[in-house]
Amino acid sequence: MFSIFPIKGYIDQIDGFYCAGIHAGLKPNGNNDLGFIYADTLCDVEAVFTRNKFQAAPLKHYQAYEKGFKTNFVLINSKNANAMTGQKGIDNINRLFAALKHDVTNPIMSSTGVIGNPLPVEKILAGANSFDLTSKDGEGLSKAIMTTDAYSKHCMYEVEVEKGKSFKIGAVAKGAGMINPNLATMLCFITTDANVPKEDMKPALEAAMHTTFNAISVDGDTSTNDTVLLLANKKSGVYAKEAFFEALRMVMHDMAMLMVADGEGAKKAVAFEVINAKTEQEAQTAAKALSNSLLVKTALFGEDPNFGRIASTIGASEITCSEDTLVISYNDVVVFEKGEILFNKEVEAQAGEVLKKEQYKIICDIGQGEASYTAYGCDLGYKYVEINADYRT
Amino acid sequence: MFSIFPIKGYIDQIDGFYCAGIHAGLKPNGNNDLGFIYADTLCDVEAVFTRNKFQAAPLKHYQAYEKGFKTNFVLINSKNANAMTGQKGIDNINRLFAALKHDVTNPIMSSTGVIGNPLPVEKILAGANSFDLTSKDGEGLSKAIMTTDAYSKHCMYEVEVEKGKSFKIGAVAKGAGMINPNLATMLCFITTDANVPKEDMKPALEAAMHTTFNAISVDGDTSTNDTVLLLANKKSGVYAKEAFFEALRMVMHDMAMLMVADGEGAKKAVAFEVINAKTEQEAQTAAKALSNSLLVKTALFGEDPNFGRIASTIGASEITCSEDTLVISYNDVVVFEKGEILFNKEVEAQAGEVLKKEQYKIICDIGQGEASYTAYGCDLGYKYVEINADYRT
Repeated sequence: MFSIFPIKGYIDQIDGFYCAGIHAGLKPNGNNDLGFIYADTLCDVEAVFTRNKFQAAPLKHYQAYEKGFKTNFVLINSKNANAMTGQKGIDNINRLFAALKHDVTNPIMSSTGVIGNPLPVEKILAGANSFDLTSKDGEGLSKAIMTTDAYSKHCMYEVEVEKGKSFKIGAVAKGAGMINPNLATMLCFITTDANVPKEDMKPALEAAMHTTFNAISVDGDTSTNDTVLLLANKKSGVYAKEAFFEALRMVMHDMAMLMVADGEGAKKAVAFEVINAKTEQEAQTAAKALSNSLLVKTALFGEDPNFGRIASTIGASEITCSEDTLVISYNDVVVFEKGEILFNKEVEAQAGEVLKKEQYKIICDIGQGEASYTAYGCDLGYKYVEINADYRT
Repeated sequence: MFSIFPIKGYIDQIDGFYCAGIHAGLKPNGNNDLGFIYADTLCDVEAVFTRNKFQAAPLKHYQAYEKGFKTNFVLINSKNANAMTGQKGIDNINRLFAALKHDVTNPIMSSTGVIGNPLPVEKILAGANSFDLTSKDGEGLSKAIMTTDAYSKHCMYEVEVEKGKSFKIGAVAKGAGMINPNLATMLCFITTDANVPKEDMKPALEAAMHTTFNAISVDGDTSTNDTVLLLANKKSGVYAKEAFFEALRMVMHDMAMLMVADGEGAKKAVAFEVINAKTEQEAQTAAKALSNSLLVKTALFGEDPNFGRIASTIGASEITCSEDTLVISYNDVVVFEKGEILFNKEVEAQAGEVLKKEQYKIICDIGQGEASYTAYGCDLGYKYVEINADYRT
């Protein structure tokens, strides 16, 4: 049996990984906007990218490497997504890396920010050339990748697979637009010293996606730049498949939950549990419809136990359902049960108490089968509009 | 050749139709909340209802009538949707009509408002019994059916099919939540004295739906109560199929456009024209994705020509597309053309001027075929959140 326990610090807690972030002149407010991850040995790398048809230039640049390539360097900038920039966008990355003074192998670029502006290559190059690749400044990196994020997102775990044998795995991430069927970019960089075989890396990533990042955004409705990157330097020499898969899932779940809670002004993180649906696909369809409904989100913001919007959203999602089998609860407060409205003054007050919490569940028992799925969402208030009305400036 | 010209007034402009609205005690602010449409002869009737799986009680009550039934009375209330109310909801409608003092045939009920509260039968009955069925108070009716609507929605046309031979057709409607993939109820009541054969009524309704109400909301993501009702008393004795289909489409288009412009705080009505898509289905998918994207809507609110969000939304919609064939324009200001960003200070200023208008087009030339579709949407600002955060009270 393995144990997974959280430890402090950033991804540079792992032996052999280095990182930092600086202000390279991209953000007008002087905040960090350029960062790197460096490894002192070559790493195996796997990635999951957006399904958006207009993948940004850095994603195309990555995919042009030969299958099975190794790398020791990731350069990340915010404020400019290098998306919708065509072949010029890719040329800019190649030009940048060609002029880099550091000796790195198969460098990877990752970008987030405004779509449709040319990459400011000279600023980024000057910044990147000023890096000290032996830095251990995880906080600096985590700030450099933020856009509308209200706080930095990172985690680190130590996984003991048997007494005295352990590996580490951790991540740094950005993403705060998961509040909606969204196009806000999600980036997540995961490092590990687990001795994971290359062939296990992609399956582990994909298995974890389903219940983590995919549960906080709508399939297919994704940014041009969404990226989850896993770097493994194998230095611990330790590996256990089950432990690694579970630890990776925990890391990605942590990052996903921090993104939900940081939903561009959101105050509440809500789990939409759909249970007893006919199929898992239907459970997922309904759960995501709930977590993405504007009318549900604004009711959560208003702390209004308006369960009619919950029911209507389920009905509109076109899954197999019937009023006669549906049960809706806020945490343990049942408000609708199989065709019966249980909503009196007392129940409304109890439900209202639940809605005042910062975290709670909305449970929808469809009563048509045994499949379930939980999606995570948040409320939507004035702050969201403020953040997104004039994002580019 | 026929001519269609607008005339003043409400649906009671048509000989044989009567209507009015009153305050029956449902809305706390004392505004009208109950209305009726009465015809002094039996009318043929057809309806299109929501695809939501949880159809409200009034929709089930209607569908329990025998196919081909005729009617002379429609009762409409706001503030309570009589949805998620099970068999009791239907029983309440039957109880109400059984106690009605007016002599009406196959009465129809229509409701909008909060989901999940029992219908206040006594208040509605008292109100309905106070009606004078010979009233001609279209304004009163139009106010009675409003929920979050900022203004009343109605139109009336006279259609001349040949010299001296004409019929009339008009509508009264409510709906203001078309701002989002929405659950806000849309009700539209259309009356005509055209001598339309019963068998033409449903096809005419369905043909018009595609480019009108379906273009302002997402298929399937509909309220529990959405209803379009067409009543024909045939009194003019005049009919021409082509003229009737076109006039009905105009009436429904008018109502749809008024709903878009009244998008719960919206200030801008925007046409999202997707042209040269591979198939019409793909054109529709992309156009609706644009009109429903939160990030696009908030950028419109901020008058920010952030065309990257337009591009990203098209890419996320998973239609056939490529950066190399895509052209994006705000009215006639081209900002992105086949892989080239045309966005300099001058173009940005021109695009900014377009975005300051109350009505404009965003044209996306996909360059993959010859199919097109236009969806209509609006901006999303603080007012939307305010209206929806605490709708029930």
